[in-house]
Amino acid sequence: MDNSFFSRFAPKDSKFFPVLKQLADVMSDASDLLAGSLQCSDLEERKVFYQKIKDKERLGDDISHHIFDELSDSFVTPFDREDIHMLADYLDDVIDRINSCAKRIATYNPKGISNDSIELGKIVSKDTECIGKAMDEIVAMRKNAMQLKARCKELHDLENKADDIYDMAIIRLFQEEKDGIEIVKNKDILNELEKATDAAERVGKILKTMIVKYA
Amino acid sequence: MDNSFFSRFAPKDSKFFPVLKQLADVMSDASDLLAGSLQCSDLEERKVFYQKIKDKERLGDDISHHIFDELSDSFVTPFDREDIHMLADYLDDVIDRINSCAKRIATYNPKGISNDSIELGKIVSKDTECIGKAMDEIVAMRKNAMQLKARCKELHDLENKADDIYDMAIIRLFQEEKDGIEIVKNKDILNELEKATDAAERVGKILKTMIVKYA
Amino acid sequence: MDNSFFSRFAPKDSKFFPVLKQLADVMSDASDLLAGSLQCSDLEERKVFYQKIKDKERLGDDISHHIFDELSDSFVTPFDREDIHMLADYLDDVIDRINSCAKRIATYNPKGISNDSIELGKIVSKDTECIGKAMDEIVAMRKNAMQLKARCKELHDLENKADDIYDMAIIRLFQEEKDGIEIVKNKDILNELEKATDAAERVGKILKTMIVKYA
Repeated sequence: MDNSFFSRFAPKDSKFFPVLKQLADVMSDASDLLAGSLQCSDLEERKVFYQKIKDKERLGDDISHHIFDELSDSFVTPFDREDIHMLADYLDDVIDRINSCAKRIATYNPKGISNDSIELGKIVSKDTECIGKAMDEIVAMRKNAMQLKARCKELHDLENKADDIYDMAIIRLFQEEKDGIEIVKNKDILNELEKATDAAERVGKILKTMIVKYA
Repeated sequence: MDNSFFSRFAPKDSKFFPVLKQLADVMSDASDLLAGSLQCSDLEERKVFYQKIKDKERLGDDISHHIFDELSDSFVTPFDREDIHMLADYLDDVIDRINSCAKRIATYNPKGISNDSIELGKIVSKDTECIGKAMDEIVAMRKNAMQLKARCKELHDLENKADDIYDMAIIRLFQEEKDGIEIVKNKDILNELEKATDAAERVGKILKTMIVKYA
Repeated sequence: MDNSFFSRFAPKDSKFFPVLKQLADVMSDASDLLAGSLQCSDLEERKVFYQKIKDKERLGDDISHHIFDELSDSFVTPFDREDIHMLADYLDDVIDRINSCAKRIATYNPKGISNDSIELGKIVSKDTECIGKAMDEIVAMRKNAMQLKARCKELHDLENKADDIYDMAIIRLFQEEKDGIEIVKNKDILNELEKATDAAERVGKILKTMIVKYA
């Protein structure tokens, strides 16, 4: 069965691909900043990182709205308009989660940040790298179907790994930290980091759905 | 390209519009009650507000189910049945969130409620007012496309504003409150208020998707 | 209007039904293990229950991926491929939530677990039993539409009941427990249990959407 719609219009409407890639780049920048934020213990520095990530988050919003406006004006796109819309939304969610992590670090201002949190931050960076590659590959979804499936798998595996790190981190936190308020702060930061990897996995899930539909 | 489906069947199936509007009215009543709940410090009064909001929440559920049943029995609707279903679900989510806020106030019974929480409650009221207007405007989605886009933008901006208030509120809470249990209580209430504004923004997002599809 | 697609292809593509049922069985096993975990107070036993539930969760993942792969390879299915994909995803979410409950019990290791938590665990078991029956009934969705609607209603009512138990549990927790860290632990466990019932209700919601579409 030839899905002629996709192959026929892909060249014509390739304008969405660079914009999705741009959104993935913003996400990648945000995750680099998050890694920096996790490494510092000074409140002012934490605030600066948060402000920079917040700027990225607003930029991500602008790009999403741009995609939305373009979609309204386009009669044909490589995929169903709703799918591009949803994909952009999900990419945006990852950026939102990264923003939430940095926000909590800056607004809670915990005394210390555990190595476990830093490890989770590294997984978020790997997630965004993987998503960036996937956004290159969807340009030719049918041709790259195998690779894209592997990206989805990678995002899924990274989430599982993040889960395990998170578990150990929580056990350690409740065993080692005796200050209730510090427990609350660190638990929430760990939680948000783990949710960032969940959001990245969801990008994988929508990609899978699109492969089912178009490839 | 004329989307004749929508214009052809709109008059015939306009019965869904008043019911969606009704759901938006329930949401608006719930947000008024929430504003009241945030202003009082007496446990018994808080419980009364929660009970009243809970009644609204169940009423919202009933209306959603009514929409669902009608959808099953209708062969044609102004939009795809799934879209009306999802829109009703998202409206219902906002009511659920408002209910969660009131629930936490009544079940946690914190010593005091901060001005920040009251401010967030006011944003929720603005959200529900905006959604109410949008539910009037979707009756003629193509004609009102510009206004509806402005509503989506407003819901998005309100969410951003709520975000900023929430940030400051959390910073203040951790700096000023020394009782760990009160921190936990107030943090959760603030969190739920912020999530109510998120849910309202999601209504804007589904509206945007529908504009992409039908207008 | 005869939805001939469904009736025409159902026998041919019935292979998806046993796999969805299999996923529901994994969910049911997980909820039985959760009930066990809620009844014990020994850390080592809690870890064993969590490990067993985690195995179920990974098995659920494998089955979901299997469904996904099959969907890619199938040209026709009884429903739209996206709907089966989403249904499998939502079933998987319930298992994920059950896993989160057990994870928190094992990683937080609270001193005691309240009767309220045990009651919520029983509701999760009823949810999974109800979903299991629904997975038997969707084989003939049109014929079983009434029963399936009743299942959706049951999942909704169970969620409402869970909500009420959760409310009382939180009131009791804040009134009776004086140790802030124990409050944080038990509040989170109650929360996760309540979210498991939410996830089960969402399965009901996607089923409702499918009934709207196909029955």
